[in-house]
Amino acid sequence: MREISADQLEDIALGAAVLGTGGGGDPYIGKLMARAALRRCGPVKLLDPDEVGDDDLVIPSAMMGAPTVMLEKTPKGDEIVTAFKAIQAFLGRPATATMSCEAGGLNSTTPFVVAAELGIPLVDADMMGRAYPEIQMCMPTLYGITATPMAIADEKGNSAILNTISNRWTETFARTVTVDMGCSAMIALYPMSGKQVKEACVPRTISFIERIGRTIRQAHQQHSDPIEAVRAVTNGFVLWRGKVADIARRTETGFARGEATIAGLGEHEGRSLRIAFQNEFLIARTADAVLASTPDLITILDAETGEPITTESLRYGFRVVVLAIPCDPRWRTPEGLALVGPGYFGYDAPYVPVEERFG
Amino acid sequence: MREISADQLEDIALGAAVLGTGGGGDPYIGKLMARAALRRCGPVKLLDPDEVGDDDLVIPSAMMGAPTVMLEKTPKGDEIVTAFKAIQAFLGRPATATMSCEAGGLNSTTPFVVAAELGIPLVDADMMGRAYPEIQMCMPTLYGITATPMAIADEKGNSAILNTISNRWTETFARTVTVDMGCSAMIALYPMSGKQVKEACVPRTISFIERIGRTIRQAHQQHSDPIEAVRAVTNGFVLWRGKVADIARRTETGFARGEATIAGLGEHEGRSLRIAFQNEFLIARTADAVLASTPDLITILDAETGEPITTESLRYGFRVVVLAIPCDPRWRTPEGLALVGPGYFGYDAPYVPVEERFG
Repeated sequence: MREISADQLEDIALGAAVLGTGGGGDPYIGKLMARAALRRCGPVKLLDPDEVGDDDLVIPSAMMGAPTVMLEKTPKGDEIVTAFKAIQAFLGRPATATMSCEAGGLNSTTPFVVAAELGIPLVDADMMGRAYPEIQMCMPTLYGITATPMAIADEKGNSAILNTISNRWTETFARTVTVDMGCSAMIALYPMSGKQVKEACVPRTISFIERIGRTIRQAHQQHSDPIEAVRAVTNGFVLWRGKVADIARRTETGFARGEATIAGLGEHEGRSLRIAFQNEFLIARTADAVLASTPDLITILDAETGEPITTESLRYGFRVVVLAIPCDPRWRTPEGLALVGPGYFGYDAPYVPVEERFG
Repeated sequence: MREISADQLEDIALGAAVLGTGGGGDPYIGKLMARAALRRCGPVKLLDPDEVGDDDLVIPSAMMGAPTVMLEKTPKGDEIVTAFKAIQAFLGRPATATMSCEAGGLNSTTPFVVAAELGIPLVDADMMGRAYPEIQMCMPTLYGITATPMAIADEKGNSAILNTISNRWTETFARTVTVDMGCSAMIALYPMSGKQVKEACVPRTISFIERIGRTIRQAHQQHSDPIEAVRAVTNGFVLWRGKVADIARRTETGFARGEATIAGLGEHEGRSLRIAFQNEFLIARTADAVLASTPDLITILDAETGEPITTESLRYGFRVVVLAIPCDPRWRTPEGLALVGPGYFGYDAPYVPVEERFG
């Protein structure tokens, strides 16, 4: 167990954008929310999974919706607590701790708000080891753990408790309710025992993203290569170096969808890489080959600073490096690939682990 | 207090179709569901509002969705109980009684299923004195009573509890969840104290629709004019006699919308009446005048049998009589008209009580 203070959120948010793979919402907003809460309520205790009791009640919390909308509709900060209180009331007992749903983007830090406001610890783990756009795309789904009861709340004061027959149905209902709520909502879901957290989640990912963020910061201070620093700490592979030649975005059914085209530079000169996204970057393809795909992580870094770039902030002319990072091995099982593999997202491409292509 | 047995549902369902004003779902399905439940569980106690204790907990229950879909997706019967049990669990105490949301259509009889299955009485009242398509269109809204906590459940086993800041928001969320559930769902909402029921609902409407149904049945037995019988028992006015010349329907955003054109016969020969509906008939217009509009009730009867015709069963060539029936006077207040007047439904026509046009 250690304490995380407002100042330590910088590295966490920076690293979260790397595992956010372009999505998961702008970590900057999550950081602002969390920082305000930590300054108001004091530091948050970060619990190692080994410190969680088997019978503890852990309830992950998050923001749901289109990151493009969240940018313009910054949460006040107490909605996330509203959803959390609603689920506790429904369950009839308080949570021992909260947890991040995803170790990528905004939602790696939003649960710090819940932890700070309610004075409960945050478990150093998440349910994805990255960011994903849909509720059922969580490791606990592979263990038969249900996403419901789930609470969802908006900034106006509306809330709902969902109870569904599958995590896919949870996603369906929560998504349309989120759209009704103005394309962004706060959620509390996947209530789990400590035993389930230890078995079915991805451990120590908050520490991991903090380490990634620190690596980038230190590379800047030491004037060393930040790209190489990120690659090394994540065991990643450089897929592509180039310049953003085109970016198409649309917000539909509560998602930010689109595709970025990156004209090659250096060794990739004269060729283009297309990266498709649905909140997160999902597949990176040249004219004749798939270079990487979900569930492996595809992240775009600024070629100069090594800082990760979200789909919303990606612009024509940016010079970038595309990195692929191996995912948690459980995503590579047949069950994992059925849930989050390229086929689920509509891409007719067999999944090949990035180490096999580039290792 | 009196008991309603399976056989007595016939008159109730028949009368419910009259106050259903073409919508509220086909009472035939509601009757089948209720009859099966009453045969299985025995008669249901019908409580006069005066017999309800001030501190009793009354929870109305209903089906929600597009009647056109309900026709093809007949409920198994126990979903309505699922929603009711969910709201009771959320409130932490059992209901003393249930009640009909609307005295028109399907939903006048669906609560009999809840009452029979759970062995609780049904209050002889409803929240509209007719049928209406949206959740906030209930008399309790005029008294500041909230529709939430509200439970919604589908036949697959999914359910949700909604808590909203206004009854208009309840409608918004419940409608999209209903669409997700396949355009039909079971609901339990507007939990009220007995005191609130007595003040904010329309009393003795179950007895009223039973009386309307009995009147039609007896007219058949006695070979007297069933149209005149319905007109007399409802204090209604004959608007139009004619033949259905056209009927346009579409199912959109969970509603059955459309318009029926009725070519005049007899005194109306050579002219046409157009009746627009959104689940229910809302406004009846000739080329140059509005003959009746919501909140007054517009109902279409078979010219031969006097039996009411729903929007779904209305067909080209049917010979019909259009009746207008005065609504509960509270709908005629400025607050009532803001909620259910012609303007709310998008018709640019000032409301004139039907008695003033025809009386």
